[in-house]
Amino acid sequence: MQKKWVNDSKSFTHSIRVYIEDTDAVGIVYYVNYLKFMERARTEYIRHMGIEHHILLDKGIGFVVADTSVKYLHPAYLDDTLSVSAKVVKIGRASLVFEQQVFRPQAEQVIVLCTGQIRIGVVNTSNFRPCALPEEYLELLRK
Amino acid sequence: MQKKWVNDSKSFTHSIRVYIEDTDAVGIVYYVNYLKFMERARTEYIRHMGIEHHILLDKGIGFVVADTSVKYLHPAYLDDTLSVSAKVVKIGRASLVFEQQVFRPQAEQVIVLCTGQIRIGVVNTSNFRPCALPEEYLELLRK
Amino acid sequence: MQKKWVNDSKSFTHSIRVYIEDTDAVGIVYYVNYLKFMERARTEYIRHMGIEHHILLDKGIGFVVADTSVKYLHPAYLDDTLSVSAKVVKIGRASLVFEQQVFRPQAEQVIVLCTGQIRIGVVNTSNFRPCALPEEYLELLRK
Amino acid sequence: MQKKWVNDSKSFTHSIRVYIEDTDAVGIVYYVNYLKFMERARTEYIRHMGIEHHILLDKGIGFVVADTSVKYLHPAYLDDTLSVSAKVVKIGRASLVFEQQVFRPQAEQVIVLCTGQIRIGVVNTSNFRPCALPEEYLELLRK
Repeated sequence: MQKKWVNDSKSFTHSIRVYIEDTDAVGIVYYVNYLKFMERARTEYIRHMGIEHHILLDKGIGFVVADTSVKYLHPAYLDDTLSVSAKVVKIGRASLVFEQQVFRPQAEQVIVLCTGQIRIGVVNTSNFRPCALPEEYLELLRK
Repeated sequence: MQKKWVNDSKSFTHSIRVYIEDTDAVGIVYYVNYLKFMERARTEYIRHMGIEHHILLDKGIGFVVADTSVKYLHPAYLDDTLSVSAKVVKIGRASLVFEQQVFRPQAEQVIVLCTGQIRIGVVNTSNFRPCALPEEYLELLRK
Repeated sequence: MQKKWVNDSKSFTHSIRVYIEDTDAVGIVYYVNYLKFMERARTEYIRHMGIEHHILLDKGIGFVVADTSVKYLHPAYLDDTLSVSAKVVKIGRASLVFEQQVFRPQAEQVIVLCTGQIRIGVVNTSNFRPCALPEEYLELLRK
Repeated sequence: MQKKWVNDSKSFTHSIRVYIEDTDAVGIVYYVNYLKFMERARTEYIRHMGIEHHILLDKGIGFVVADTSVKYLHPAYLDDTLSVSAKVVKIGRASLVFEQQVFRPQAEQVIVLCTGQIRIGVVNTSNFRPCALPEEYLELLRK
């Protein structure tokens, strides 16, 4: 399952350090925490495009996760430095789909530890009903 | 999307209270935490069948999550009392598949907030390679 | 440091199960999580007295932790069943002080794993400035 | 309580971004998470001195938190960039005491959000009894 990482010019990459808080009694990164790592990468990615989560919230717009499909291939360990990619693969009026990978650079190759497809819904935070993302944000995402 | 809960005699149900630790700045349960809720229900389910996680670990056997597919339908809120079901839908020699739901009893109906399919791999904790679950445990699960 | 638990009729006790989510790579409960366990016990205690956190928040009143002093005496492990006590030792107009213990019943004795003193401030959630707790709540707490 | 930050040449500073995972339904950083932020800074500080946690664990040596005293002065919010300082104020044979601050640079001043004193015990991970830190590590810390 180890494969060379194919550089993808359209994906954004964020670096993560594994701390004790991320591990569990099995001695590896607790699988639930990869979802946090992926979210940090998505957040930095959209921040990089000019969108900040707290500004959206002030406007009454929230990004909520609608579904996730995640595969765990190899464990990560305490003190590892991991890379997390984020790529928007679909932009709807009230939803976004991201494809993400968590990988560990290692000697001359890269080991993919975890892959995920995450669908985000855009909601009105007063009633949690779907709402369209304002056009200005859609434009930032389409760039 | 609201539907009556059909009682299923083969599924186990565990009760969860939502605390501040489970919520986020959107004012709802942070979606990542549903995976913890589902794991608590799986853990209580297998404990109910006579299997304890720390005893497996002492034998060098670990349950690791291999993949998850989760859909988020409705939000949960601070102080909610939720129910989480767990049902084994497939037993392999070195893997288990669970189907789970998180739901909130409410007046005369039940609202399903989140559904998941979780595939667990059985591994040797010294090298994280797949290993067969000892027959005595398989028997407990098949009951 | 092991001592018999002296039953204290004024303290409330809440039961906690240790799951994988609570542990770390050292093989014990991650120390940060004892603060969550203590908060769960405080929350159930004030709920027991008739105060629910989300109702306070709807009124624009928040309980925020102002300071904590915690001592860690012995580790807890995966699958342990722990008890967490909560006792109000001081009631101010805009603050509460709790004393709490996390302990593990074991054979004929009880081992105290962790003790804490937690000071809670009552704030107006619109500006996070201290505010008096409404008299009706103070009365519930004084009982 | 707002004060100018006095630069201290002996303290190490680590930068933290606040993500959704760190917040709670009160709309601020969940107080428990400051302990994680402080630990990340301590970990990077000792790594900077040449000590890695997983290498200690492989030798059967663990750092466990023995007591914490933390004061919460001001809230932090989603998307904040925080700085976390770490300074060793006492080195014993089997313990270390750190003083730490979490602060937010803001316009021309710095707001201290949280201060903590954290005492770490050095233990043998096979029995969790105190053990002396090997001389080579003590030397790294004394530099």
